[in-house]
Amino acid sequence: MKKFLFILIFLISVNLIVLPQSRVTKSQLIFPDIDEYKTLKCDFHIHTVFSDGLVWPDFRVSEAIQDGLDAIAITDHIEYRPHKEFLTGDLNTSSSIAIKEAKYQNFIVIRGAEITRKMPPGHINAIFLNDVNPLETDDVVEAVKAAYEQGAFIFWNHPCWKAQQPDTVVWFNMHTELYTKGYIHGIELVNFSDFCPEAWKWGQEKNLTILSNSDIHGTTNTSEFVKHRPITLVFASELSENAIKDALFARRTLAYYNEKIYGEKQWLEKLFKNSLEIEKHNDPDIHRTFYEITNLTSVPIILEPQNTEIVKKRIIPEKIEVPPLTKVNFDIRYKNYSEQKVKFDVKTFIYDIDKYLEFELDVK
Amino acid sequence: MKKFLFILIFLISVNLIVLPQSRVTKSQLIFPDIDEYKTLKCDFHIHTVFSDGLVWPDFRVSEAIQDGLDAIAITDHIEYRPHKEFLTGDLNTSSSIAIKEAKYQNFIVIRGAEITRKMPPGHINAIFLNDVNPLETDDVVEAVKAAYEQGAFIFWNHPCWKAQQPDTVVWFNMHTELYTKGYIHGIELVNFSDFCPEAWKWGQEKNLTILSNSDIHGTTNTSEFVKHRPITLVFASELSENAIKDALFARRTLAYYNEKIYGEKQWLEKLFKNSLEIEKHNDPDIHRTFYEITNLTSVPIILEPQNTEIVKKRIIPEKIEVPPLTKVNFDIRYKNYSEQKVKFDVKTFIYDIDKYLEFELDVK
Amino acid sequence: MKKFLFILIFLISVNLIVLPQSRVTKSQLIFPDIDEYKTLKCDFHIHTVFSDGLVWPDFRVSEAIQDGLDAIAITDHIEYRPHKEFLTGDLNTSSSIAIKEAKYQNFIVIRGAEITRKMPPGHINAIFLNDVNPLETDDVVEAVKAAYEQGAFIFWNHPCWKAQQPDTVVWFNMHTELYTKGYIHGIELVNFSDFCPEAWKWGQEKNLTILSNSDIHGTTNTSEFVKHRPITLVFASELSENAIKDALFARRTLAYYNEKIYGEKQWLEKLFKNSLEIEKHNDPDIHRTFYEITNLTSVPIILEPQNTEIVKKRIIPEKIEVPPLTKVNFDIRYKNYSEQKVKFDVKTFIYDIDKYLEFELDVK
Amino acid sequence: MKKFLFILIFLISVNLIVLPQSRVTKSQLIFPDIDEYKTLKCDFHIHTVFSDGLVWPDFRVSEAIQDGLDAIAITDHIEYRPHKEFLTGDLNTSSSIAIKEAKYQNFIVIRGAEITRKMPPGHINAIFLNDVNPLETDDVVEAVKAAYEQGAFIFWNHPCWKAQQPDTVVWFNMHTELYTKGYIHGIELVNFSDFCPEAWKWGQEKNLTILSNSDIHGTTNTSEFVKHRPITLVFASELSENAIKDALFARRTLAYYNEKIYGEKQWLEKLFKNSLEIEKHNDPDIHRTFYEITNLTSVPIILEPQNTEIVKKRIIPEKIEVPPLTKVNFDIRYKNYSEQKVKFDVKTFIYDIDKYLEFELDVK
Repeated sequence: MKKFLFILIFLISVNLIVLPQSRVTKSQLIFPDIDEYKTLKCDFHIHTVFSDGLVWPDFRVSEAIQDGLDAIAITDHIEYRPHKEFLTGDLNTSSSIAIKEAKYQNFIVIRGAEITRKMPPGHINAIFLNDVNPLETDDVVEAVKAAYEQGAFIFWNHPCWKAQQPDTVVWFNMHTELYTKGYIHGIELVNFSDFCPEAWKWGQEKNLTILSNSDIHGTTNTSEFVKHRPITLVFASELSENAIKDALFARRTLAYYNEKIYGEKQWLEKLFKNSLEIEKHNDPDIHRTFYEITNLTSVPIILEPQNTEIVKKRIIPEKIEVPPLTKVNFDIRYKNYSEQKVKFDVKTFIYDIDKYLEFELDVK
Repeated sequence: MKKFLFILIFLISVNLIVLPQSRVTKSQLIFPDIDEYKTLKCDFHIHTVFSDGLVWPDFRVSEAIQDGLDAIAITDHIEYRPHKEFLTGDLNTSSSIAIKEAKYQNFIVIRGAEITRKMPPGHINAIFLNDVNPLETDDVVEAVKAAYEQGAFIFWNHPCWKAQQPDTVVWFNMHTELYTKGYIHGIELVNFSDFCPEAWKWGQEKNLTILSNSDIHGTTNTSEFVKHRPITLVFASELSENAIKDALFARRTLAYYNEKIYGEKQWLEKLFKNSLEIEKHNDPDIHRTFYEITNLTSVPIILEPQNTEIVKKRIIPEKIEVPPLTKVNFDIRYKNYSEQKVKFDVKTFIYDIDKYLEFELDVK
Repeated sequence: MKKFLFILIFLISVNLIVLPQSRVTKSQLIFPDIDEYKTLKCDFHIHTVFSDGLVWPDFRVSEAIQDGLDAIAITDHIEYRPHKEFLTGDLNTSSSIAIKEAKYQNFIVIRGAEITRKMPPGHINAIFLNDVNPLETDDVVEAVKAAYEQGAFIFWNHPCWKAQQPDTVVWFNMHTELYTKGYIHGIELVNFSDFCPEAWKWGQEKNLTILSNSDIHGTTNTSEFVKHRPITLVFASELSENAIKDALFARRTLAYYNEKIYGEKQWLEKLFKNSLEIEKHNDPDIHRTFYEITNLTSVPIILEPQNTEIVKKRIIPEKIEVPPLTKVNFDIRYKNYSEQKVKFDVKTFIYDIDKYLEFELDVK
Repeated sequence: MKKFLFILIFLISVNLIVLPQSRVTKSQLIFPDIDEYKTLKCDFHIHTVFSDGLVWPDFRVSEAIQDGLDAIAITDHIEYRPHKEFLTGDLNTSSSIAIKEAKYQNFIVIRGAEITRKMPPGHINAIFLNDVNPLETDDVVEAVKAAYEQGAFIFWNHPCWKAQQPDTVVWFNMHTELYTKGYIHGIELVNFSDFCPEAWKWGQEKNLTILSNSDIHGTTNTSEFVKHRPITLVFASELSENAIKDALFARRTLAYYNEKIYGEKQWLEKLFKNSLEIEKHNDPDIHRTFYEITNLTSVPIILEPQNTEIVKKRIIPEKIEVPPLTKVNFDIRYKNYSEQKVKFDVKTFIYDIDKYLEFELDVK
């Protein structure tokens, strides 16, 4: 049998395997960096066959690169592993496989885990772990504490999930207990196809970092996301695991979901500023100012004038939609308009429920 | 620990799992049945994480259903299993998992395996196996024999594969030995992105069934197929494993690759006959016959007149392309044409190297 | 100068013009015929440069063929012709040019005109005219009468048009006058991008034929239709101008708009019956019936179970969407369901405001 | 009758016309400016209904804006006007209508004409004309001279056109005569769907400006261009008719055709330099340098290593394709490579037949 194995290894090295070609991956997911920081595209909630996912860990790396991401966390369920009978290894195995693959791809994989309990507290992710195994313990508070003691970044997943709270969205006493102990640092504003308004409110009240994650089990192409894979934009000093960790604890994130950007105004403003190029030409003879706006990003930019009267008077179009990586032309017909500015709501940059980033253009 | 497991199971049944919703899958892969047989769309060469594939076996079932297939064979490598250290089970495990999933989807999964050796004889698939384990044996002829004794349908994979024959495409003595013993029944005309002309020649000479398989390791969406996943069309008396087996041994197959159909003339003709609807209107005043052809299938139908003179004289267009599920209008301008018929080559229905199915239309 | 003209003609015939090639046009607009009738795709409201349209009349023919239509009416405004100073000819010129072109394309062009007045009565189309010129007269009732006397089919255009009734949708006395005289036979349920519910109500009350027209001025590709060019489906005994006229007077039409079909139940039912192919497989072991539905048409078929309880119990999916020319698989999980049928609303076949065609499937 | 006209005008102003909304146009045609110049996208060969085109002149303006262009020339045939019997006006009418429309769109329309003769000299465009009418004269040399005397920019259209030279591509004596007199300044390298290699050779030998024009008669959406509307890139000091004229006489153009850029090396280099963003990361541990290249333009950038040996050794991928407005990742595996640079051909930036712009990347 030893001999047989030796032969096999020889066969493989000779002509069963082809030396892998350098992979060329393409992506149209483009966001500008902001002044001080790089804008990293991340997904911190991902499953593999080692829990109830359907793909091998290294597939998650190539998939994420093709999706245009910079970093992911592997977060297999600790307590729910339906393929367990067919697998060996421990709770670190899935992230170890992915981390090894990532090394060869200039990509960042963060070791994580999903503490998977009934409500409360529901499901909780811990990332930047050194060792997942100590988190496998009966008492959920002990499990979260074990993560905390490793310096993990910890967040509450999908607080709006109907399967756990069919008719309510409640912040339970147990969440208060964990939060008070400093064990909760973030909350999923977006999970898979769902947006959770309560998460936003709690995040603002309690200074939690907001996240937008895929919770992917199948593949990007077969998952019914809303328009695209949800992504957490992270503003980090560099492309490194430590810099991402710093950014998460410092709440430097935005959520990209349903072709819109959600989050704190200061980051929205910085991102928006670098997202557009504007050219202007005023023709006084015909009382028109012509604008050309180029959208340098992958998020559609939709501008709606705040003053609907000037739309009715046909001074300005009622909606200016600049699709991703597209140039749009329109004009302001100012013959019957005496103001110096037109103010817009940016309907795809949202800093609170129904509150949009403001933007203004010169009339002339 | 027992208690802990019990609690977990309870948790799961209460609110960790959601009762799965009935899956609605959509596909535009449409081929007509022919007179005596159903036209089944099959792929007989597929890998999972249990060899060097990247997905769990049951993913292969849902993926194939979404791709519009009726049946697949799971054919993990016997001798090449790079994830082995992380997996338990034996050589039947991957197909068993997929077969169980298929039962709940009205889908057919065939147990198979890939005997994976250096050239000769290279890689050989055996399908319709009861037990893969006996095929794991040192001597390759013994391995194939073990499949044969289970009544397997056995075929030579990718004979043109550059990794095993960089500069030649040779039928080795060992292939003659296996063939003479009755151990080889088919040959891959198409594997992944490659078409192998020699396979066609050998198939015709030696009465081998031709196959067109994906050899998929990643996923349909991330594999660089030529335009689409290659498929073997099987003309079977019904949708059942036995009927597919009968059809394969009876050589009732066609290969669908690169948006063209390849194979024996008799099956091409029957398939083509049911692929079109034709409407005709002759207007003698202007010496024109107007045709409307509707393509009822997923393969483009491309007609080119055999007589290029009538193209130059503008009697007939030089190419009539009827895309999948599309209706095309064109006319024959017969003022200066005295023949009764126009003959075409059907450039997407191919019965031998550079030989196309013939088709004719009435001039009036 | 005579000589010069002669030379020019000679030049043209020698090498300024190329003999036109037979045009191959492709379309995915596919609807089945119904038992007694052909299903013709028509558009009865179309403009050219001869009023305020932007294209030459013969472009309308090739455009309509590429859009998959069978017949159009050219209906230039009588009273609004902004390019008039640059054009010669009379009110028949635009349709005459298009009719001549259609002759060479096996296509039907109907001579029409749009009587273009302020409200009431607004804009009125008359089609199947012999001579448009008599309709150019001061009194609008006289104009409509002139059409009536030619046997025209006459209909009220876009009754919901905001430009003429910004805050109301009123049937004026003048409409009653015209209707009572027998001068109004139809009404536009759909015009360009707008659906008019009042038109449907009036059509039902007063036995008017409903129409769905594009009112196209630019081109199909540059017009902001709702998802596609609106179309009137006409059930005609054959492809001829007379048969279309008979069908319109007999009210055998449906409106295709926004990927839905609107109109009388009897025609919806006949069209729907021929739009689907259904395959069924019951597997009693697992208490499931598997369905495969193929949509043979260009309109999406969306089925929603009327009984929402069986959706909650996961007996049936909440929505079964069969896109155009697509095959869909799903199952009924009848273990806890004792009824023999499942009833659906067909959400894309609509016979009155919020009333959908009903459809049922056997449970086993 | 006077009264009737008055009423009509009143009707129109009240409720036949809707005040036009400001048009929002979108385009993904994006090219960077170069150091000294703006990169303008132009088409200098366009027809309307006033010769044998199928659309009204002002449609050409909105169509071009939607196509992302900055300027067009209207160049109706002088000698071939098949709609003549239905039209009034003179040879300036079509461009006058378009120029008036352009004024309201911040768009540039140049008055031109196509002198349309048999070969030699075939068809010749003159643009930047003040008055087309003097060009309508029997003698073709006189016609071209009349353009020259107005300071026109004059170019030979489609020298490879099969309809005029079925078996040859000859520069005739008459071309020499016109050229010697200074009457020819440019030549179409691309016309509609055809690329003319001889035009390039003559352009280089005789210092002619190369052009890439659509010669559009129908519409962008219905014309069978090769992948996209052909465009002349013009490097102009500003967006103005004069600046374009200067640039054309100074030969500051490139041809954009079939998703490739053709023309003089100096302009290719400047354009290419601003077309890419490059990020690099060297990981010495694994002997790999990771590159991320972002394509900021609408032309695909395709890089092929000049040294095919390093492709075979898997040091570098054989082709790096960066689609428009896309980011691509790949790596250089330099373990067995001692050079400091990798040199590429840029297969989509072409400065002569089979000669490609060169580009190099640091290995580390």
